[in-house]
Amino acid sequence: MANRPTINDLMYLGVDGGGTKCRAILVDQENRVIGEGNGGPANPYHGVPRALESIVNATDNALRSAGLKPEDKSRVVAGLGLAGVNVPSLYTIVKQWDHPYYAQYLTTDLHIACIAAHNQIDGAVIVSGTGSCGFAHVGNDTLTLGAHGFPLGDVGSGAWMGLECIKAVLLDSDDLGPKTAMTELVAEQLQARGIMIVERLNGAKSSDYAKMAPLVFAAAEQGDEIALSIVHEGAGYLTDVARKLWQLNPPRMAMLGGVSQRIVDWMDKDIAAKMSEALNQPEFGAVQFARTQFETQSRIAVE
Amino acid sequence: MANRPTINDLMYLGVDGGGTKCRAILVDQENRVIGEGNGGPANPYHGVPRALESIVNATDNALRSAGLKPEDKSRVVAGLGLAGVNVPSLYTIVKQWDHPYYAQYLTTDLHIACIAAHNQIDGAVIVSGTGSCGFAHVGNDTLTLGAHGFPLGDVGSGAWMGLECIKAVLLDSDDLGPKTAMTELVAEQLQARGIMIVERLNGAKSSDYAKMAPLVFAAAEQGDEIALSIVHEGAGYLTDVARKLWQLNPPRMAMLGGVSQRIVDWMDKDIAAKMSEALNQPEFGAVQFARTQFETQSRIAVE
Repeated sequence: MANRPTINDLMYLGVDGGGTKCRAILVDQENRVIGEGNGGPANPYHGVPRALESIVNATDNALRSAGLKPEDKSRVVAGLGLAGVNVPSLYTIVKQWDHPYYAQYLTTDLHIACIAAHNQIDGAVIVSGTGSCGFAHVGNDTLTLGAHGFPLGDVGSGAWMGLECIKAVLLDSDDLGPKTAMTELVAEQLQARGIMIVERLNGAKSSDYAKMAPLVFAAAEQGDEIALSIVHEGAGYLTDVARKLWQLNPPRMAMLGGVSQRIVDWMDKDIAAKMSEALNQPEFGAVQFARTQFETQSRIAVE
Repeated sequence: MANRPTINDLMYLGVDGGGTKCRAILVDQENRVIGEGNGGPANPYHGVPRALESIVNATDNALRSAGLKPEDKSRVVAGLGLAGVNVPSLYTIVKQWDHPYYAQYLTTDLHIACIAAHNQIDGAVIVSGTGSCGFAHVGNDTLTLGAHGFPLGDVGSGAWMGLECIKAVLLDSDDLGPKTAMTELVAEQLQARGIMIVERLNGAKSSDYAKMAPLVFAAAEQGDEIALSIVHEGAGYLTDVARKLWQLNPPRMAMLGGVSQRIVDWMDKDIAAKMSEALNQPEFGAVQFARTQFETQSRIAVE
């Protein structure tokens, strides 16, 4: 292959793919960020073709922002950290697709987030964003908790809080459940009441439900009992997840995702106090993962 | 229009359309059943084109079983009772589609089920099948409770029981919730445990979740506490629905749907004791609805 890039031409790409969007960064051999780009939803559980399209879009946008062309994907060593590939069949499909990169290394969004948060291989993370889950990697042990997706699991996530909110509001509107302050907040946000809420949410995705999470916090802070019970259930679950992850003795634990900064205040104090700051964004973990995997393979190839 | 059918050529069609399937009967002017047919899912909330296709398929099957042809739809006065058209925008879409019938009259699946169950206009029904809801029509009052669809509502339905079952089993598999006998029952039915359950349920519809409801009853009957709490919550909700419907003083109340015969045993005894048998299948209510509407309109036209 005459045009095959040499090692010196290669760049590293890190992709963090979730249910709402995916984000890519491009770094050179000295680990300097030379480009970045976004794409649409990239959770293969919600559709493999759409996820792959989003990843390619994010890649092309990152290349473009670096002054490069789509064809330069052949010079890219890509690390993909995707939601949903904890499901074995989806892992296999994405691992085996006819990708446009020089090399592709696939792992979960949790794994790259954990590497990035701690700037090292060992650590633990709890995610509370659109979805929720826990992850720890210590020595040879890996533990994943939750990551079951919406609506099967994801307790303590934005989508779960939003769904519980709507369920309570609909019970209220039928006068078959307690009154809740969330009814007025939802009426304002969706411009809908009762059965019209069902209409508004026709075809709603987990990210649409997650938009209701701030209403639940707002009502809970006003002392609304139903909102408080939702927040307490979610925070209690995440506390249980954290306790289970600590049993592996990770050196650090961090909370990630758009809901984490608010829900951590409702978790058990001893657990909340032990959370560390996340050091880097997940896409940097994807780069680190790709580089480690690629260098290990190259070393093996030379040996 | 030379080929426009005369009143004497007309037949009545009754269609009961739900989330799992739709069923049509064809009757002649003397109300004798001359054909019947089934079609696929017909809840417009889950997709209008598919629902309309299912309705046309059920119609064609009914015509065929009567020795008639698809073209004979032009001689049919159709009564459609559909799930999902309690949502106003969906009602409008289906009411206005370019239907192939002589005339079409649209209402909810609940309304036709209620007419059929009591062989009269006034009455009340509680549905616990794939979904759940309550409905009463007394004099000029109509009350609909629930009918919010999966996963927003439908407490006490098969789909809701199935989802609650899977949520509990996944918590058990992460050792973040109590042990439940449903774990083994689900493992047997889905041939999957833990994250593999998530994989099996990728793209699952409400009807797929409803297939898990018998496991919940089985575990509850063995005394499994988690299964008992699901069954009690579902039955408690349906009891509340019944009490609210009785406030309208309907002459009769009946329970309908594939889960109703099992869950009624867990409802409050006083409420369960007052349930009457359903007299006819919903599709007969659709015929009665179509006939009443058509005759009223014809009378108005003559006047």
